[in-house]
Amino acid sequence: MLRPGLFFLFAGLGDTQHQDEAHLIKVAATLELLHKATLIHDDIIDDSPLRHGEITIQSKYGKDVAVYAGDLLFTVFFELLIETMNGSTLMQRNAAAMKKLLLGELGQMNTRYSRTQTITDYLKNINGKTAELFSLACLEGAHFGKAAPKVQQLAAQIGENIGIAFQIFDDILDYTSTAGTLKKPVLEDLAEGVYTSPLLFAYAEHPDSFEPLLQKEEKITTSEVKQVGQLVRKYGGTKSAVKLARTYTERASALIAELPVSPARTQIEKITSALLKRKF
Amino acid sequence: MLRPGLFFLFAGLGDTQHQDEAHLIKVAATLELLHKATLIHDDIIDDSPLRHGEITIQSKYGKDVAVYAGDLLFTVFFELLIETMNGSTLMQRNAAAMKKLLLGELGQMNTRYSRTQTITDYLKNINGKTAELFSLACLEGAHFGKAAPKVQQLAAQIGENIGIAFQIFDDILDYTSTAGTLKKPVLEDLAEGVYTSPLLFAYAEHPDSFEPLLQKEEKITTSEVKQVGQLVRKYGGTKSAVKLARTYTERASALIAELPVSPARTQIEKITSALLKRKF
Repeated sequence: MLRPGLFFLFAGLGDTQHQDEAHLIKVAATLELLHKATLIHDDIIDDSPLRHGEITIQSKYGKDVAVYAGDLLFTVFFELLIETMNGSTLMQRNAAAMKKLLLGELGQMNTRYSRTQTITDYLKNINGKTAELFSLACLEGAHFGKAAPKVQQLAAQIGENIGIAFQIFDDILDYTSTAGTLKKPVLEDLAEGVYTSPLLFAYAEHPDSFEPLLQKEEKITTSEVKQVGQLVRKYGGTKSAVKLARTYTERASALIAELPVSPARTQIEKITSALLKRKF
Repeated sequence: MLRPGLFFLFAGLGDTQHQDEAHLIKVAATLELLHKATLIHDDIIDDSPLRHGEITIQSKYGKDVAVYAGDLLFTVFFELLIETMNGSTLMQRNAAAMKKLLLGELGQMNTRYSRTQTITDYLKNINGKTAELFSLACLEGAHFGKAAPKVQQLAAQIGENIGIAFQIFDDILDYTSTAGTLKKPVLEDLAEGVYTSPLLFAYAEHPDSFEPLLQKEEKITTSEVKQVGQLVRKYGGTKSAVKLARTYTERASALIAELPVSPARTQIEKITSALLKRKF
């Protein structure tokens, strides 16, 4: 429940004496509902067996049930959104977020197995699939927590930068972690043709070393996937990706420093830095 | 584009001198978008090869693409809804419709291959999967066309009754039509275990004749499906279903007669009776 967590952290920047907690809880729930709805559908596309260490709906009940399960969560998301913010300009922002999320996933699907995609393509996709919802969570926390307009604007930007850094770290862990700590199969993205920044950086330096393996596309074997993982680490792909992530954590930190001094700001600083050092 | 068609018919009952046509067109589009989004996902569940004589997305591009295609239409629906009616009470009605549509489909999925389901179960499912959106189309036409509140209320009821009758006729055609006029495989629902009113009526009269065939569930062969179809006609299942449909068309007609006399009312009468005599 990372997105609702961010939401409440940023709500702390607002007028905590005059907040409607029941309302805030419902808005926080909309974020998790939208997130989970998209995950359920993404797991269909990716044929994912596991998500956060749990068997996915598509794997346990089949793709048909997963289609409707995702749709049902979209419906509940929509219902709760109308209950909590009908008439608000945040409605537009939610529609835009939903679209960006989907376009991020479609972008990822379209660049599958593409070695010619750039880091810019990659950033665009993760901006849609991850950063947009992080940004919305922080913005809505500040907005419905009754923070000043300037704080709301900062919150949206902080959320976006945290989101990008978070996703890059997530992608790095795919190359550096073990299945036990990751709670899903390692190198799953790679095997599915989703080439993330560690691979893109390493490939750009040594395309010839990767070509024979990556040319196999969906026919790549498990041991070849492991070889690609070793090459990515050997050619410094993960290190370059850490550097890239750092530029976003630094931007987030600089923006957090612009927030008014408050216990909530201190909390945001601490949790952001912890979040971006996570193990899975 | 039946739902937008109904929408504009009922908009004709309003203040036609002071209507915003561009706005009405957008609202009409939301109805078709929601309808099409659910159809695309339903075709995944039903493995449907054809819809209205055209190859389905799931059949042409695969289930993965169909998941995202449906999601994208949901997103555009949502976006256009916010553009056209953010803050309106019709937003709640749309969320409720979306939920009912889905629950209708889930209900149909849950009663698959069930010979113990009642006509009431069947009516509940078709109320959700078809009548709700017909009702919304007529209500929104009257509402955004600026008709009186009483007319709006009638419109919603008329739409519901037309929708139920329409779906029953649709289900009858599955038993009486040929693939050429139907523009999809005949008895497709039956083969997929979706037992509609003609079968339910005939089965209730002669369960023993149907049991050996229906017990095979998904293992039923094409020629056995045809045998079931013949039994349904032989035992008067389609006739009973026509009778059932007629109670709804009569209710719709009685409600239409309560509308103020106007050219729009005459049009609604004509088109409703034509619609409920259609060939496919």
